[in-house]
Amino acid sequence: MPQPPYQRVVVVGVGLIGGSVALALRERGLAKEVVGVVRSAESKARLEELGLVDRVTTDHREAFAGAQVIVVATPVGAIVSEVARALEEATNGALITDAGSTKAEIVALTRGSTEREDAPAFIGAHPLAGDHRSGPEAARADLLEGATTVITPTFEAGELETTRDGVRGFWEALGSNVIEMLPARHDELLALTSHVPHVAAAAVAATTPAEALPLAATGWADTTRVAAGSALLWREILLANRAPIAGGLRQLIKELEAYAAALDSGDGDTLERMLEEGRLRRDALGS
Amino acid sequence: MPQPPYQRVVVVGVGLIGGSVALALRERGLAKEVVGVVRSAESKARLEELGLVDRVTTDHREAFAGAQVIVVATPVGAIVSEVARALEEATNGALITDAGSTKAEIVALTRGSTEREDAPAFIGAHPLAGDHRSGPEAARADLLEGATTVITPTFEAGELETTRDGVRGFWEALGSNVIEMLPARHDELLALTSHVPHVAAAAVAATTPAEALPLAATGWADTTRVAAGSALLWREILLANRAPIAGGLRQLIKELEAYAAALDSGDGDTLERMLEEGRLRRDALGS
Repeated sequence: MPQPPYQRVVVVGVGLIGGSVALALRERGLAKEVVGVVRSAESKARLEELGLVDRVTTDHREAFAGAQVIVVATPVGAIVSEVARALEEATNGALITDAGSTKAEIVALTRGSTEREDAPAFIGAHPLAGDHRSGPEAARADLLEGATTVITPTFEAGELETTRDGVRGFWEALGSNVIEMLPARHDELLALTSHVPHVAAAAVAATTPAEALPLAATGWADTTRVAAGSALLWREILLANRAPIAGGLRQLIKELEAYAAALDSGDGDTLERMLEEGRLRRDALGS
Repeated sequence: MPQPPYQRVVVVGVGLIGGSVALALRERGLAKEVVGVVRSAESKARLEELGLVDRVTTDHREAFAGAQVIVVATPVGAIVSEVARALEEATNGALITDAGSTKAEIVALTRGSTEREDAPAFIGAHPLAGDHRSGPEAARADLLEGATTVITPTFEAGELETTRDGVRGFWEALGSNVIEMLPARHDELLALTSHVPHVAAAAVAATTPAEALPLAATGWADTTRVAAGSALLWREILLANRAPIAGGLRQLIKELEAYAAALDSGDGDTLERMLEEGRLRRDALGS
């Protein structure tokens, strides 16, 4: 039997993504030991029951000792402090990455957070995999399979090519397709593919009166599905990417105003042209 | 063997809905003969190959002779003229219904379209079943099973209770749950559960630049799914329900403006409250 490539991988925050990373590591035989780090004794007990990781602890320092890879998969609001802690406490040579859905702020705030000369390296990542459910119960080994993971190196002085290759290799080993992008560019594009659609879904749901729901069919269900996500988690995600999302929403508002004006004047040609633009962009993705 | 309840049912326009009605009638043994009426020899040949109906014709009058039920399932823009034709040509005592997704205009324009004293009866219907695919190839016998069908009687002089019962019984026999609603009320509520979400989906898709699509995951795919529908069909649907949709869009725009303002000022509490309102309304429906 070949040795697994990693002796120890630590997953900080074991929810949907962290749990799925852990399951994939174990199912693919990638690590001798997968250790989950959680905050509370309650989470520890719950995770031990689910059996997603080999071992659960609330002790960061102990878990970090000897880990080759540390994945911070907490909610967005906790990522900066968890990455900073890993930069301070992890073994020299460890790779630190995260799974946050915004990147610019995280990368900026963690840079220079430690004065350690032999500090390990952090490169942000965003695995584009999700589910309308959240929490470790929803984790599954194939969540990342075939998904895109964006990694966001800065290409600045001090960032080594070997680090980039290591982080890329980690996310590829889990079955995802890795693309590289600067953190700010990632956030701009994500605002349009994830955050604006989420707000649109929540707004459509909120402006549908309860008495109309008996008339809601698959179209409403699909269009609003992501709005079932945790309001607290999404508050953090939106706050971490404010300007690009607000810009995207204003573009969306303009488009909706054009629809309303075309409806007012009964301008079928304009309606059809706009609908066709939406159809073509939608079809570019597939089902 | 008990006799099927209907001797002949005619489906005018055999696409996704018409084809599914035909398949359900046959699978449930509800009609001795299901006849499809189409416009062109091309459609006739295509349908004969698919085998959704017992017989296809382009001759309305021949098909209508002796039919107990006529279902007009053409695109919205053709429903009024097809219903008017059925009112003129169908056998006395026949029930005429349709499957259009808007109702007020259809019901208003067909009322009094014939001067025949023994004219058959029309009551509009809207089976809330759909698929992002369209056309007869997408038809399936269980499309209406468990779906809601809204029927829109007017409760005006001349509309008989036996007619309402007959139309209700027809749509129930296909497996759908029937609710009654006045035509205008149906359209107001449908604007919010179907037409506004469709426009929102198309607008989100259209305002996502092509270069961002590699970062689109399940959230974007779900939120924009209905935008894959035919622009021409949706042009007609939107034009048939202009004022309620424009009103719904302006409500949606207000909600989106409130999100943009909360993002500008970093007001997390407001964001969370709005997200939670959306989540609760979404959860009221189920997956």
